[in-house]
Amino acid sequence: MKRTNYCGDITASLLGTKQTLCGWVNSYRNHGGVLFIDVRDRSGICQVVVEPSKPFFAEASAVRNEYVVEVTGTVNRRIEGAVNKNMKTGEIEVVAEEFKVLNTSIPLPFDVDKSLSVAEEIRLKYRYLDLRNPHMYANLLLRHRIMQAARRYLDGQGFLEVETPILTRSTPEGARDYLVPSRVHHGEFYALPQSPQMFKQTLMASGIDRYFQLARCFRDEDLRADRQPEHTQIDMEMSFVTIDDIHEVVEGLMKEIFKTAGKDISVPFPKLSYHDAMEKYGSDKPDLRYSLEMKNVNDVFKNTGFKVFKEVLAAGGAIRALRGEKGAAYSRGHLDKLTELAKKNGAKGLVWLKVKDGALEGPSAKFFTPQEMSALKEAVSALDGDIILVGSDANLHTCQTFMGALRKELVKELPRQSEWAFAWITNFPLLEYIPEEDRWDAAHNPFTAPVEEDLPNLEKDPGSVRSYQFDLVLNGNELASGSVRNCRREVQERILALMKHSKEESARRFGMLLNALEAGAPPHGGIGLGLDRITALLAGEESIREVIAFPKTAQAVCPLTDSPNVVDDIQLKELGIEISKE
Amino acid sequence: MKRTNYCGDITASLLGTKQTLCGWVNSYRNHGGVLFIDVRDRSGICQVVVEPSKPFFAEASAVRNEYVVEVTGTVNRRIEGAVNKNMKTGEIEVVAEEFKVLNTSIPLPFDVDKSLSVAEEIRLKYRYLDLRNPHMYANLLLRHRIMQAARRYLDGQGFLEVETPILTRSTPEGARDYLVPSRVHHGEFYALPQSPQMFKQTLMASGIDRYFQLARCFRDEDLRADRQPEHTQIDMEMSFVTIDDIHEVVEGLMKEIFKTAGKDISVPFPKLSYHDAMEKYGSDKPDLRYSLEMKNVNDVFKNTGFKVFKEVLAAGGAIRALRGEKGAAYSRGHLDKLTELAKKNGAKGLVWLKVKDGALEGPSAKFFTPQEMSALKEAVSALDGDIILVGSDANLHTCQTFMGALRKELVKELPRQSEWAFAWITNFPLLEYIPEEDRWDAAHNPFTAPVEEDLPNLEKDPGSVRSYQFDLVLNGNELASGSVRNCRREVQERILALMKHSKEESARRFGMLLNALEAGAPPHGGIGLGLDRITALLAGEESIREVIAFPKTAQAVCPLTDSPNVVDDIQLKELGIEISKE
Repeated sequence: MKRTNYCGDITASLLGTKQTLCGWVNSYRNHGGVLFIDVRDRSGICQVVVEPSKPFFAEASAVRNEYVVEVTGTVNRRIEGAVNKNMKTGEIEVVAEEFKVLNTSIPLPFDVDKSLSVAEEIRLKYRYLDLRNPHMYANLLLRHRIMQAARRYLDGQGFLEVETPILTRSTPEGARDYLVPSRVHHGEFYALPQSPQMFKQTLMASGIDRYFQLARCFRDEDLRADRQPEHTQIDMEMSFVTIDDIHEVVEGLMKEIFKTAGKDISVPFPKLSYHDAMEKYGSDKPDLRYSLEMKNVNDVFKNTGFKVFKEVLAAGGAIRALRGEKGAAYSRGHLDKLTELAKKNGAKGLVWLKVKDGALEGPSAKFFTPQEMSALKEAVSALDGDIILVGSDANLHTCQTFMGALRKELVKELPRQSEWAFAWITNFPLLEYIPEEDRWDAAHNPFTAPVEEDLPNLEKDPGSVRSYQFDLVLNGNELASGSVRNCRREVQERILALMKHSKEESARRFGMLLNALEAGAPPHGGIGLGLDRITALLAGEESIREVIAFPKTAQAVCPLTDSPNVVDDIQLKELGIEISKE
Repeated sequence: MKRTNYCGDITASLLGTKQTLCGWVNSYRNHGGVLFIDVRDRSGICQVVVEPSKPFFAEASAVRNEYVVEVTGTVNRRIEGAVNKNMKTGEIEVVAEEFKVLNTSIPLPFDVDKSLSVAEEIRLKYRYLDLRNPHMYANLLLRHRIMQAARRYLDGQGFLEVETPILTRSTPEGARDYLVPSRVHHGEFYALPQSPQMFKQTLMASGIDRYFQLARCFRDEDLRADRQPEHTQIDMEMSFVTIDDIHEVVEGLMKEIFKTAGKDISVPFPKLSYHDAMEKYGSDKPDLRYSLEMKNVNDVFKNTGFKVFKEVLAAGGAIRALRGEKGAAYSRGHLDKLTELAKKNGAKGLVWLKVKDGALEGPSAKFFTPQEMSALKEAVSALDGDIILVGSDANLHTCQTFMGALRKELVKELPRQSEWAFAWITNFPLLEYIPEEDRWDAAHNPFTAPVEEDLPNLEKDPGSVRSYQFDLVLNGNELASGSVRNCRREVQERILALMKHSKEESARRFGMLLNALEAGAPPHGGIGLGLDRITALLAGEESIREVIAFPKTAQAVCPLTDSPNVVDDIQLKELGIEISKE
């Protein structure tokens, strides 16, 4: 390789030396007959000077943006007025002695340094230009470093990286599977894994003891804004462990990953039960950078004359209140928006009370006694100039959920208590009832083990059974979901039976795992962490598409390769499939 | 976690300490009323002693092979006669103070320690038992280490790991694609990548400069014994490089990988042109652990009266000879087998001559003059007791190929010159002619660049154009294939035109790459190394299935998950496809 150094590394320490650069023309200008070319590579930019006396001056003068050049020259100090203190290479320039155009470029649809403001569809179609933007390179570099840090840490903890198949069996549950027709076996299909769940549990039954993989997972979901048909999971599983063991490993992993990005986080992470998370924050992925909590004010209104609250309490429902700091200043329009938000999240209405001169004001204020108002104010520690939002519903979960949505809105105006607020959410229920189908479903994952002492109640009172399921949340995002698994076939089958899977169906869908469980499976548990989301958070990006080299649009299309696309008839014929008439 | 140590790590240095083990019952026996249980985990085996006085003696007596147990006890020195010097833990035993059965096991279809001799279909069906065999664990551990070493090395060399999509565009070339019907876009399909070739070249156009990935590749091929529908490639690409730069990086990588497996190899690897490899060894992946070379004996027979050779030479063909050490002792049966092998590889016949008392003997000996026989003997340096195999064909390549097959057979009886014989095979032709289709095809890879000075002959004499293509071979196996690529759209399109791709077809198949090439693509090149094969060679395995956790059979079936398999009608309906009548 002729290159002696990356552009961004040619600093004053190399003054007087001869260097060869390779890179792209970032910009060029002729200044008083002398040509100045900024050459860019992944490391940065270096200014090249081409003097008019040079035999290659004409060739160099013909370059345009994004031409690829190779330049050899001597590192020189820039004249006083030309020094750029904001650039690593701003003190120097390379005076060209050799100059070669390695490749040309057609005129481009957008400037590389402005690519981030181009419409996303266009950015993705010309992703090779978009990725030349230093911001995008920084994102890919960060992702690379996170991946290496994760593997180095897990390797050091005795985990084995094992690759599990991409062409595997359809086990319809959760999302839809992507299917792959088999050419050799007519009428049969492989499926792409939604996660390596059954394989990693099988690896525990295989005595691997500690497994990890940066695993590609595939879900054919109805696409939402920030979902991708394929995503990457830092996937792991461990034998002979408790929940605390898993937490400890993941805390160490996150510390390592954040260190790689120059961030120091403290471990262990706080633990919060699902019950408390819902009760205090109205969410199972609360944003704990903010201390705002909602308050149970059932007692405040236990004798109320306000019909709505009275009926809610009579039905065994919930009344919850939130303090909105300085919210007394909210306009009618703002309050309507908050009410809309609550309704969109299941509320029938919303009571608001502004605190002004010690009194509570608002359309519903007239329904409350002075004692109720005073107790309400105290419950949420409201001060003059605040607003109090009070929600109620006959269904506790509904009330918590829409109040949680309001909390999320209110905290936007509050100061953060920390930059990174991690928490473990624990003690999820094992099962939840699906009334439409008159059956129980796994609250999270059908493989999660019930808490041992709740096991006798599994059939008697399925809804009361706690699980060894947990989530990791960060700044209001769910980063990971894990659990201790069922290691006995009998227990696993009882749970599948509650989910109304017949024995035959269970065997068909989960046969491999059930067979492994009865052949000496060790107690085990694990977790899968969303690499895309972790990287996006550390990169300060809203969308995971900014940290994926070649993402798909919300319509699951790749504008770069134009996939999916039609295929040749002969291919379908060989596969033994036909496209249905629409 | 209660475990204090892995079983295999409990050695005499821990005498007198209390330890907790978790693992599988590898064997058990009651010896004079005392129970001895060998507990196994991934690290090894430890002997546990359960005394009859213990309250858990009955529970412990009920264990069977592959039960999962947890044992706490004190590390004790074994009595003199019970010491096993062949085991790391053979000096000690753990005297149980606590004992728990964590899980039971049904009786198993085969013993874990005998799994390697079970029929492969059964091993794969019960892979979770097969992988408990320490030999299989060692293979997976080796693979893990190779993967970590590869990434560590490439990270250190400035390569960025970038994940490329699995759901991508069908680009029919080489093997068949696996297709994935799109549910959202009726009648359209994704394809699984045969390799990330176009993506990695696009990453070079994106300025990533150095890319790598341990990439999953998918080929729907007619299955041969040791092919898998999916395989893993250590995939890399670099910008602004020559062939030598790529070789240097790969040599460093292989040295690192081999070091991980405790093997020291020397670099750089020898380079051998494709022409010389075919001429000396009759193969583009010669096994260079053996020095045996075939010899061009055209000149020896230039005036021969032997009709076969005379006609071959008149047709511009080739005569090649191989020395078979001590082959004068070959039986008629053995010689028939060699002749059969030659014929299977394209020969019309084979001349053999045994060297006995300085003379050459054999059915064809009568056709040759003493001068010819003496020159032949000298050409291959044959000694008394040897045999000389002489092959001829009007087509040089045919002659080289079947003589190469014979060489492969002959070296089986020769001593190895080295344990690991690497070589770069270089200077492959760019194109080869496909007479049936009256077109040229890429000899290796349509993206390989022609040697710059041969470029003017591209259309005039395509067959003469040399390429920047190269292979890495080890002990007769092709480990990797790489090249410097076309970085100019114009040259790439000229090559595609010779392959009889119309502009429209080229745009459809290779559009993304062609577009990237004309927008400032840097000179670049790369390589993909077969991880499965490298691991198998280092593990001393014939089959790559021994180093893949969950491989498929030669029929592309996974007996563990029973995939591929039928799917629900509703799934097909959602995807808008139907299964054709057979």
